[in-house]
Order: sequence, then C-alpha cells, then structure tokens
Amino acid sequence: METLKVLFHVSEPDRWKVALGNITNLIKDVGEGNVDVEVLANGPSVSAYVDSELIDIMKGLAEKNVRFVACRNSLKKMCADDIICIDEDKLPSFIEVVPAGITEIIKKQAEGYAYVKP
Amino acid sequence: METLKVLFHVSEPDRWKVALGNITNLIKDVGEGNVDVEVLANGPSVSAYVDSELIDIMKGLAEKNVRFVACRNSLKKMCADDIICIDEDKLPSFIEVVPAGITEIIKKQAEGYAYVKP
Amino acid sequence: METLKVLFHVSEPDRWKVALGNITNLIKDVGEGNVDVEVLANGPSVSAYVDSELIDIMKGLAEKNVRFVACRNSLKKMCADDIICIDEDKLPSFIEVVPAGITEIIKKQAEGYAYVKP
Repeated sequence: METLKVLFHVSEPDRWKVALGNITNLIKDVGEGNVDVEVLANGPSVSAYVDSELIDIMKGLAEKNVRFVACRNSLKKMCADDIICIDEDKLPSFIEVVPAGITEIIKKQAEGYAYVKP
Repeated sequence: METLKVLFHVSEPDRWKVALGNITNLIKDVGEGNVDVEVLANGPSVSAYVDSELIDIMKGLAEKNVRFVACRNSLKKMCADDIICIDEDKLPSFIEVVPAGITEIIKKQAEGYAYVKP
Repeated sequence: METLKVLFHVSEPDRWKVALGNITNLIKDVGEGNVDVEVLANGPSVSAYVDSELIDIMKGLAEKNVRFVACRNSLKKMCADDIICIDEDKLPSFIEVVPAGITEIIKKQAEGYAYVKP
C-alpha cells in the first residue's frame, strides 16, 4: 500500500480528544509505517500543548512518528489576549513551532496531504 | 464537464441537515450524472443512520447515487459509551460500513475527491 | 516560491473573525503576491456580507487580491427563513455571487486549491 499522508487541523481545544482518537484509530487500521501524520494546532487549541493529560497521549503518538506542530501567531495571540502565555522553548521537544499555521496547512496539501478537520 | 468528486465529512449530529441540504443543492446545480458524492459519518454523527426522518432524505439521495458510509469504530464507541448501540446488520442497505472512517477520508482525497466539512 | 492557492470555507457567522485573522496572517507570512486566496461563504455566514465592521476588514483584504464569494442558495434560504434578506445587487462590488457555494468549493479543490475550514 502506498503511504497515506494526512494533516489534521485542530483549531478548537474541545476537538483534541476527537483528533487524538482519530489518529489512534487510523494507525491501528493501516499500521504505523503506512501513514504520515501531521497535526497542526492553531487558534486557542495551542493551549493543549501545555495540558499534561493530552501531552501524554501526544507523546505516545509522537513515538509512532506523528508530528505535532504549533502556530506561533496563535501562541503570541493567546498571550496578548491574556489567555495563556506559553514559552515555546519550554514546549516538549516533539512539538515543532511554525511562524504561521495556515501557511503550513496549505503547503502540506500542496504536497499531497489530505486535510481532516476533526 | 469532467465529473466532480467530493467527500462530505460529517462528525457532529447537528451538521446532518446542512450536509444533506448541501448535497441536494449540489446535485441540482451540476446535474446527477456530473458529480460523485460520498458522505462519511464518524463520531456521534453515526446516530443519524437510525433516524427515520434523516434516513428518508438520505434514501432519496442514495437513489441519485450518493454513497453513505459509517465508521465502525464510531459505531462501537457509541455503544461502549452507552449512548446508542446500532446493529450494523440492521442499517438500511444503502449504508456501507468501513473499519475506520478516517482512513476512508484520507484514501478518497488521495483519489482526487474534494473534502467538505459542512 | 510557487504560488500557494487556498479556499477558505466559512459556513458559521462566528468563524469570520478567525477566517479574516488567518488570511491576514497568511499574507503577512508569505507576501501578497505569493498566495491566491478565495473565501467562500455559505449558510448563515453570508450575513457577514452586510456587516459593516467585517466588510471594512474584507475590503482591505480584497485590495490585496483576496476574493470573497457568496452562495446564492444560502442568500435565498436566509431570506426564505425570515432571517435576513440580502439584495445581491447591493452587495459591495468586491463580493462575487455563485449559484451554489458547494460546487465552487469542489471546483477550486479540483483546480489545486487547498481547503481550510477556519
């Protein structure tokens, strides 16, 4: 089977559990080596990157090569709006930060990734 | 005109009316033979497959070659969570069940289907 | 860099601010000439096309070549449902109306546009 490629777009915090469940089911269904998964969080959903319960699940998925990405614009906006200030240097090492999450979403689709909004 | 191909992803029960309205308008706009439509339901939205009012609308669309698909993982989870237990053998014959809805969504996009989240 | 192409799908009125913020960040990130952006509004979100505060932001983006499109089916339904009747001839000139928004979303993806649901 050709490797499947997918970008999950998570913008709302309450969609994380669905997204992580989707990814778990996906890997179980097709097998770890057969799918390339990236999760792009923007908007208020970036707050999950400091939620220890969710981080534990993400870490397990990161060990199965799922990539977790955060939008820097969103991290900055959450801080400017006095919601939460997240120091990106203190994020778990498996989380990558990109300047603009939207650009990442578009580029990945241009590279042939499917788009899923859980 | 080349045949258009689209996968509608319905994850929340309250999006079904919008999705079915979208599909009705789409077929009216381009003509039945000019579009290949699949609807993939996962998460709590699978409960619509036993809602007689919605089933009536779906049946009319299935007669216009719209395919309705349910995620088996979601059917099982809804039952395990004591929300609703749906016996897939009792689903209307026009509804297909796939092991993992997410895999279906990704495969269809890899086959050139557009993705729409109503 | 190859020009990025993206269609933003806005169906709910409360997603407009996120969508317009996403587009602003996107253009700031990649530069005005490097991205082709279309925004397709259907469902109740078409009401934003008569919201003066949002129109001001849209106008600024339209000057950066962002295209704003409304679904005629949705305009008609909003009027039939006694929510709001919008005369499409009175819409700002930078807003284009298409017969069926869903068809536009599918066609754009077939032309290589990424899909983003803010």
